[in-house]
Amino acid sequence: MPYFDAASTAPLHPVARQALLAALDEGWADPARLHRSARQARMLLDAARETVAEALGARADEIAFTASGTQALQLGVLGALRGHRRRGAHLVHSAVEHSAVLHTAERWEADGGTATSVPVDRHGRVDAAEFAAAVRPDTALAVLQSANHEVGTLQPVTETAALLGDVPLLVDAAQSAGRLPVPAGWSVLAASAHKWGGPAGVGVLAVRKGVRFSSALPADDREGGRVPGFPNVPAIVAAAASLRAVRAGAEAENARLRELVDLVRHRVPQLVPAVEVVGHPELRLPHLVTFSCLYVDGEVLLTGLDRAGFAVSSGSSCTSSTLTPSHVLAAMGVLTEGNLRISLPAGTTRAEVDAFLDVLPRVVAEVRAPLGLDLALPAAGPAGGSAGALVVDTLGKRCPIPVIELAKRIGEVAPGGLVAVLSDDEAARHDIPAWCGMCGHAYAGEAPAAEYGGARGTAYLVRRA
Amino acid sequence: MPYFDAASTAPLHPVARQALLAALDEGWADPARLHRSARQARMLLDAARETVAEALGARADEIAFTASGTQALQLGVLGALRGHRRRGAHLVHSAVEHSAVLHTAERWEADGGTATSVPVDRHGRVDAAEFAAAVRPDTALAVLQSANHEVGTLQPVTETAALLGDVPLLVDAAQSAGRLPVPAGWSVLAASAHKWGGPAGVGVLAVRKGVRFSSALPADDREGGRVPGFPNVPAIVAAAASLRAVRAGAEAENARLRELVDLVRHRVPQLVPAVEVVGHPELRLPHLVTFSCLYVDGEVLLTGLDRAGFAVSSGSSCTSSTLTPSHVLAAMGVLTEGNLRISLPAGTTRAEVDAFLDVLPRVVAEVRAPLGLDLALPAAGPAGGSAGALVVDTLGKRCPIPVIELAKRIGEVAPGGLVAVLSDDEAARHDIPAWCGMCGHAYAGEAPAAEYGGARGTAYLVRRA
Repeated sequence: MPYFDAASTAPLHPVARQALLAALDEGWADPARLHRSARQARMLLDAARETVAEALGARADEIAFTASGTQALQLGVLGALRGHRRRGAHLVHSAVEHSAVLHTAERWEADGGTATSVPVDRHGRVDAAEFAAAVRPDTALAVLQSANHEVGTLQPVTETAALLGDVPLLVDAAQSAGRLPVPAGWSVLAASAHKWGGPAGVGVLAVRKGVRFSSALPADDREGGRVPGFPNVPAIVAAAASLRAVRAGAEAENARLRELVDLVRHRVPQLVPAVEVVGHPELRLPHLVTFSCLYVDGEVLLTGLDRAGFAVSSGSSCTSSTLTPSHVLAAMGVLTEGNLRISLPAGTTRAEVDAFLDVLPRVVAEVRAPLGLDLALPAAGPAGGSAGALVVDTLGKRCPIPVIELAKRIGEVAPGGLVAVLSDDEAARHDIPAWCGMCGHAYAGEAPAAEYGGARGTAYLVRRA
Repeated sequence: MPYFDAASTAPLHPVARQALLAALDEGWADPARLHRSARQARMLLDAARETVAEALGARADEIAFTASGTQALQLGVLGALRGHRRRGAHLVHSAVEHSAVLHTAERWEADGGTATSVPVDRHGRVDAAEFAAAVRPDTALAVLQSANHEVGTLQPVTETAALLGDVPLLVDAAQSAGRLPVPAGWSVLAASAHKWGGPAGVGVLAVRKGVRFSSALPADDREGGRVPGFPNVPAIVAAAASLRAVRAGAEAENARLRELVDLVRHRVPQLVPAVEVVGHPELRLPHLVTFSCLYVDGEVLLTGLDRAGFAVSSGSSCTSSTLTPSHVLAAMGVLTEGNLRISLPAGTTRAEVDAFLDVLPRVVAEVRAPLGLDLALPAAGPAGGSAGALVVDTLGKRCPIPVIELAKRIGEVAPGGLVAVLSDDEAARHDIPAWCGMCGHAYAGEAPAAEYGGARGTAYLVRRA
């Protein structure tokens, strides 16, 4: 079964598996003890630290191993903020950071700190100057990802770091570590081994020598006082071995995967009507492509593809357990519905991608069929404008129904005419403007639904092109 | 090489290894996703949760998996304290809890909370009534281990829980889980898989249904909002499988190991002069025994045993990286020097224990030889008391020198005569009274060293028996 969800977790690299098995035999003891088994574990741990440090452009004593990328981000953000308390309690981050960063920022604010979220452009990229302009005299830490996990857009890390002066920058390299060189300019670095083919259970937290850091958790002697608890030596050894292996072959594999991703980026809009490929067209991860299919639920699409034998992911509004739209897609101002993320693991073949391109149009069409939509851009409606707006009442209906109803009925008004979509689903606030952007209609703002006869909710106003 | 350090970490159980390998193939994907590989990982995770819940006497939805026992303790203590803030901010714990608990208590106090440490008796056991008496109207949480990790003493958990009223009790079952049934009465439970033969990287945090809990870390959707980060499914599967296997054979193995431990407890004082076996003689873990050898450095002893092929551990003042004495031994009021902990993994043979008993006396004698001590209790010294005290100046000397010098020279005073040991090593404050207890001399308190001609430090006064 073709697995196109490497950005969630990559399949275990054969080198990682081999190293894990060896280290289960040789590195199972407590490296903090003084007997022979312990010394052996300690040597393996030290060697793994050297390997990871070299691969990430750090010193071995700057590297601490965590239990996950999320833990590295949480401890990294909070530890750096606590370490720079004298500066103040202000945190700057991009609007499209991993949810671990956003949740940490929320907690930081709830505990009395402040945070500024820097917006991104339609490709999901921050502007370095705009990011730097959010820094204040009381800014204790800035956080920027190397590449976005949902749309693959690379961020201008080095350019931004150069503008930050002495404000420390934490770089979340989870999606790029192992694939691309770590961008220069970080004071704190976070990564996750299972994203590069290492085992689960290993994250990396690197803190540059001299950067102030004060652990957010009660400290012990482990990992330089930065990450408490018994270290998982066998998994760390496996993570290091696979990082070295992946780095060695990265350039060739990146070029190969980039071609496959280019194929998807090029072909999907030809094969599937009403699709928007999102993320930066050039400055992006080599193995990841994301697109949104109008009028369909991402989860239904994903389930259809799963039945057809393809494992993909979705940042759609209707897939996550919280039922809120992907904050990344929302920040980009692109459609959050019908979203699919294709992230290719190492070794993905052209045949697998071809098979996917063969199956995708059928799966999308099957999901869309019951909607009875004309998927060409809406044809001209009755001539002459209507004085009032056409009211499309979707109150009580969840995404993507409001957009589907809008698409079905916008043809009823003349070009220049107004449609008022009444909705009480928050996702509509974002998806209707995004749909307008895709289809060329003008979004004309919102008003209380009551002004258009609605019992509750909001009226989203669209002027037909 | 006989490995007698199971209390640090047990060798990987064969069932754990087998389950880990299978789950690396079947359970590597992200269980939060919606495709087939993800569902498979989710099913394995759910099944592991059921297994662990059953083995620990909990419901599956009460179990969350952490990355280590330390993480389970930290998140458990802080989460329960935060969840019971309305009660107040007072924490009660025994003086011999794991350092993860003590460090968390220190952090809690630094952040404005309060904590009471309940003393233990000479066997390392709390008194249930005394523990319960430390509870106040503002007590938000009580913490008590099931068994001590350094000396093996079982704590009166169920008896204590019954006296706590509605104050929640967190039980640290790290040393007993898998070996002994979990004692009744817990509201929060912590355990660690690598102590029962599971892999590193898995701890257990159980929170009883209805017990208030508020995560100390920024929450995500994982593990019921209690433990953030990508779950290590293969390791969790292995942890569950080994827990079930170990539980099934525990009764027989406990009986076997208890006999071997009884042998050590009985023979060591016969084979080695000036030894004190510490910990409760009856209410104790079946596989663990700790003793202290007078006049020697635990680290040197450990190194000697390692050279002779035995892996053991030490809570001695001179072994840990912080150079402070074991807080457990100190709280018990027993000698912290020359301490060795023998903890037998499953499958330890009588032949291995016999070999250890054969080697130990030689190793101890070799370390003691250069000291030129008479290891019988000090013989009678010159008749007639001296009016003033015999001053033994050990200023600038580190443990165990002060006790060694005291032992060498106490024979110089008559019975009833006074020795003043001058020392600036904090360990002496504890070790000299403990030595007196062992040798039958009377500890007569301390005074500024200046009163006995010392330039600095403290004079520890000993009256010869």
